[in-house]
Amino acid sequence: MDMIALEEIRRVKFRYLRCLDLKRWDEMAETLTADARARYGTPSYGKALEFDSREAIIEFLRTTVGPGITTVHFAGQPEIEVDGDTARGTWLLQDKVIVPEHRVIIEGAAFYEDTYRRENGAWLISDTGYDRLYESMTPLDDLPGFKLTANRWSTPA
Amino acid sequence: MDMIALEEIRRVKFRYLRCLDLKRWDEMAETLTADARARYGTPSYGKALEFDSREAIIEFLRTTVGPGITTVHFAGQPEIEVDGDTARGTWLLQDKVIVPEHRVIIEGAAFYEDTYRRENGAWLISDTGYDRLYESMTPLDDLPGFKLTANRWSTPA
Amino acid sequence: MDMIALEEIRRVKFRYLRCLDLKRWDEMAETLTADARARYGTPSYGKALEFDSREAIIEFLRTTVGPGITTVHFAGQPEIEVDGDTARGTWLLQDKVIVPEHRVIIEGAAFYEDTYRRENGAWLISDTGYDRLYESMTPLDDLPGFKLTANRWSTPA
Repeated sequence: MDMIALEEIRRVKFRYLRCLDLKRWDEMAETLTADARARYGTPSYGKALEFDSREAIIEFLRTTVGPGITTVHFAGQPEIEVDGDTARGTWLLQDKVIVPEHRVIIEGAAFYEDTYRRENGAWLISDTGYDRLYESMTPLDDLPGFKLTANRWSTPA
Repeated sequence: MDMIALEEIRRVKFRYLRCLDLKRWDEMAETLTADARARYGTPSYGKALEFDSREAIIEFLRTTVGPGITTVHFAGQPEIEVDGDTARGTWLLQDKVIVPEHRVIIEGAAFYEDTYRRENGAWLISDTGYDRLYESMTPLDDLPGFKLTANRWSTPA
Repeated sequence: MDMIALEEIRRVKFRYLRCLDLKRWDEMAETLTADARARYGTPSYGKALEFDSREAIIEFLRTTVGPGITTVHFAGQPEIEVDGDTARGTWLLQDKVIVPEHRVIIEGAAFYEDTYRRENGAWLISDTGYDRLYESMTPLDDLPGFKLTANRWSTPA
């Protein structure tokens, strides 16, 4: 078992996820191969979300996960199989999206199915996607006393 | 420190948890010793849940965590001590159970206390159980706008 | 890459977090250097929470996170860089605090920024702090059917 490869693959995934929640799109691009594919199984957009290049993935996220949206993507339970310079991995994801303007909280869980590729000694994500266990929407109007006491992405009124 | 054993033990636990949420009972059985014990400290069933064999554990889960129940079991923070061909481990668990038919969401957290045994070179779970930090029930009637926008286990009406 | 150091650092962090949720303050002190600093970016106390010694951190937690408060601190996605006998680490934290007496649930997420130091062969936390992605308060009065069916820290009435 190649423990170094496993750690490096976990690290590139953690960096991808951190950059997503911190909206660091340029740094996030460094975690993907140029030909990276992404398939996000969320019903929120009314159509399948499929992208076939690093550029398309980053462009979608940059324009969609804007400053009015707070996201938390927490993935764990990695089961990773390394085969030379490629690898496959499964992860459990729990995510939460808060959209104050639309007064809604979206929560969900899913299993990621990823592939990774080692390029010039560095492991990158070459394919990522997930199937939902569930996804839910809770309108904040159902919780009249709910308060966001901190929000990194709020625009103070 | 036996890093390979630590990784193999994490892997068998992640597989157990993934099979639980995906209701893959036959595959889940492969993560347990034949004499595996389980003690689940949930009050939901009104009595202690204790099982003394792999067969009894899988039979309970197969008949209880049915197709109308969506579960997410997310465990992390492993503290594992290996001693030859046995090991002990503590994990933090966060779990969420959605039962649309009963219009209820159950959430909780607990610390797992497990033991593991190496049989024919493969680490298996020989004892698992947890004590709750908390468990809560939220009736969906309190959230009239709540919607499940995705649910792997829903039966379309 | 020093895999042993990475595992030892993860372990001291997991122990710190477990002791926090189990209110084991004396054991928690063993995870910190004597000169440990902590900065918790929560707005809940109306002022910055900054502490400059192990003693001050433990004293604050011992007196603040009392028996009427149930906490769950779940951290993952460690990105740790070891440099000799010091290290830096980033983690994603999701936390939940239930205060039945005040009928409120506080939830949040944050990125930890820690430093670690190896003293007499043991890795300890020398600096810990986090910036919030978000923090929310939900009054239980908004959820009239909400029930705590288990609570390790409840005082039975």
